[in-house]
Amino acid sequence: MERHSQPTYHTKESKLKAKTKLTILKLGGSVITEKEKPLTPNYKAIKRLSREIKESNIKKLVIVHGGGSFGHPIAKKYDISSGLKNEKQLLGFSETHMAMVELNKIIIESLLGEGVPAVPISPLSFIINKSGRIWKIDLEIIRRLLDMDFVPVLYGDTVLDTDLGFTILSGDQIASKLAIELKAERLIFGVDVDGIFTGDPKLDPSAKLIENLKLSKIEKLNLDFSVRGFDVTGGMHGKFMEAFEAVKFGVKVFVVNARKPNLIKNALMGLPVRGTLIEF
Amino acid sequence: MERHSQPTYHTKESKLKAKTKLTILKLGGSVITEKEKPLTPNYKAIKRLSREIKESNIKKLVIVHGGGSFGHPIAKKYDISSGLKNEKQLLGFSETHMAMVELNKIIIESLLGEGVPAVPISPLSFIINKSGRIWKIDLEIIRRLLDMDFVPVLYGDTVLDTDLGFTILSGDQIASKLAIELKAERLIFGVDVDGIFTGDPKLDPSAKLIENLKLSKIEKLNLDFSVRGFDVTGGMHGKFMEAFEAVKFGVKVFVVNARKPNLIKNALMGLPVRGTLIEF
Repeated sequence: MERHSQPTYHTKESKLKAKTKLTILKLGGSVITEKEKPLTPNYKAIKRLSREIKESNIKKLVIVHGGGSFGHPIAKKYDISSGLKNEKQLLGFSETHMAMVELNKIIIESLLGEGVPAVPISPLSFIINKSGRIWKIDLEIIRRLLDMDFVPVLYGDTVLDTDLGFTILSGDQIASKLAIELKAERLIFGVDVDGIFTGDPKLDPSAKLIENLKLSKIEKLNLDFSVRGFDVTGGMHGKFMEAFEAVKFGVKVFVVNARKPNLIKNALMGLPVRGTLIEF
Repeated sequence: MERHSQPTYHTKESKLKAKTKLTILKLGGSVITEKEKPLTPNYKAIKRLSREIKESNIKKLVIVHGGGSFGHPIAKKYDISSGLKNEKQLLGFSETHMAMVELNKIIIESLLGEGVPAVPISPLSFIINKSGRIWKIDLEIIRRLLDMDFVPVLYGDTVLDTDLGFTILSGDQIASKLAIELKAERLIFGVDVDGIFTGDPKLDPSAKLIENLKLSKIEKLNLDFSVRGFDVTGGMHGKFMEAFEAVKFGVKVFVVNARKPNLIKNALMGLPVRGTLIEF
């Protein structure tokens, strides 16, 4: 009787709901690597975050991670982001990608070790940029992986570019693009600060965390972020320009400190956490 | 005057010629790994072959390598090739892929070390199969890499499959597909035997190497190959079924012993080498 009282369209609706409840988690390079030490992963943070992802019990998730001290120093050395200018860069292009593959491998193995069915998808292998922006991307494999309950894992990477020859595609741009194209409910940026402040909290003691940021009011705020080290893909300002793109398409964007234990776990579970929620 | 006496279409023709002179090199898993020892690369062979590829000075080249003792044991353990049957396989699917990523990394680093601008392309990230055969593949990135004088490197891999959920895609199938779709001039199989024999040379002392194999005569020959160990992707017979597909499309297929020094180098240079040439 119970089965009969439940019409088919309810099942369909709940399936649809489950599909729309996708979360994109961007893990910043400064969280998962020792940003000042070349090619040095932060194993402790990677292990803790893998466990938090497992414990959150989240079902539909795509992870995108940054390059930190893996991708950036080599990309900078060979000047990859501004495009192909000479033959010497060819080896540097591949070396930069290989550094990212290495970092990705550490993250995938950590996730698998916790029982998260993470599958790496190489941006270089399926994305083409045009003047630095994603121009061609086929999401069928990622959609199918999600349908099978895999957790696709992408990363900031070297990619081909129709105008520049090649370039660097930031994890932030990928995360935002995926959130828009896959109609994600939420895009969570796990960063190394507590969120977006009214000023630089290290220089200005009166700087306050903005807990709710309305995109329509953005012009009026004096936004400042504590940016450490270097980041060829744009640092915090670049990150939030990408985030705003997703916000415009109705994605809820959270900025959360991934260095502090359990914030990512709680954010994935939908529990309230200290950070910045960006909405239109 | 010289410039005027050389009409534009000649330039175009030579460009076209350069483009059609693509070579696909398949390196067998039994050549680049210790096939009987799980997860053991044959560093000596990898280094020698990287140097041979560099020394051949070949310009338009795609490399595809097999899994050997990296991909196969894990794929077998989780029964990946016959498709998705239970949730436990999800981790095994990813573990199999990661083993291939690890082997590929060793090969890429060896090639880069010799100055070959090798770029890894992950089959899992851009190919979808249907009942075990390649169903969806976009070759734009590989074409663009070749235009920029990169050497794309692919490998036998775990891929999604519209009917099976997922499966194993052999390096042989990839190599043959690329040869056909990219209109390669040659497809060279670097294997651990001298070529195709009239019988098993280890069991039958009268077995002779077939130097020229006409596909149209294939039904009449008693083909036997020395197959060692196990190969979930089909072994020698599977390999030549893939090769024959390319031959039908006009690709010249060579089977050469990649364990013997300089045979791959000479084959890449177009010099005569002992082996089997397969034609229609």
